[in-house]
Amino acid sequence: MKELDKVELYKIGTIFTPHKTIANIPIQSIGAKDYIGIIELEPHLTAALEGLEGFSNLILLYHLHRIDGYKLKVKPFMDDKEYGIYATRSPKRPSPIGLSTVELIKIEKNKIWFKGADMLDGTPLIDIKPFFRQVDNRPDAVSGWLDSKDVDLPAKQRSDDRFA
Amino acid sequence: MKELDKVELYKIGTIFTPHKTIANIPIQSIGAKDYIGIIELEPHLTAALEGLEGFSNLILLYHLHRIDGYKLKVKPFMDDKEYGIYATRSPKRPSPIGLSTVELIKIEKNKIWFKGADMLDGTPLIDIKPFFRQVDNRPDAVSGWLDSKDVDLPAKQRSDDRFA
Repeated sequence: MKELDKVELYKIGTIFTPHKTIANIPIQSIGAKDYIGIIELEPHLTAALEGLEGFSNLILLYHLHRIDGYKLKVKPFMDDKEYGIYATRSPKRPSPIGLSTVELIKIEKNKIWFKGADMLDGTPLIDIKPFFRQVDNRPDAVSGWLDSKDVDLPAKQRSDDRFA
Repeated sequence: MKELDKVELYKIGTIFTPHKTIANIPIQSIGAKDYIGIIELEPHLTAALEGLEGFSNLILLYHLHRIDGYKLKVKPFMDDKEYGIYATRSPKRPSPIGLSTVELIKIEKNKIWFKGADMLDGTPLIDIKPFFRQVDNRPDAVSGWLDSKDVDLPAKQRSDDRFA
């Protein structure tokens, strides 16, 4: 596998969730509404959360730290056909970074409670972005192969161990 | 400034845009609809794009490679009050990663043309995620301090050199 140039980012905290194994996790945060996660931000970054309490939703970017290597083509959890990895949200990506839009519950000092935990327990957090309703919604988006599936599928489907 | 642990990700390609300087860039892709960007993916990753042509929108994650160091509190481009950096989308973040939802125009081999280029020319690309209408929209989100601003502001506002 050809080498890619490295990009150096940083771990700003850890995400604690009820998911201890890579299989049987809700594959999207909309299917994980009953799962509460807790972010523990590095304590010296606490001031960076000021004003975040006014937002209902957060976009979390995190390191898929248990993924080893990558695939160019995968069968995603929601289909039995193969697609290029960039047409999917599968974790075995060349840059193993995950994105989840979650629901903010509360912030206390350097800790953030949220609903919609669809990542492994102990996941390294890379960034938190406030969800800007005015900027991040695309209600009329066309979503390729996913549009032919049952609209409830992303909320129902769970992971297996195919990318472990 | 206390050190953070490193997270190693990879450059999967380069984003070429009309924006050659850090000032006067549209600050969000919805304000950059007239700006076309071109992604040049590493050629050996080309197969990973198969199926992406069916999606109208892509989420691009990229390295804010011209940002040096970070701030815990900033005045964002859209307000004159100070907020924690995580309540903003300002670039001077502990992990300098940018997120833009853009509109796909066409894909040819390892090149992707898109509308909504709000990043600097030569930006290192980290990941491409297909926008899943069923998963990524939050029409009822509450967006903190931004909700008190003119709804057109994110599309109108441009950057200055405050984070250069």
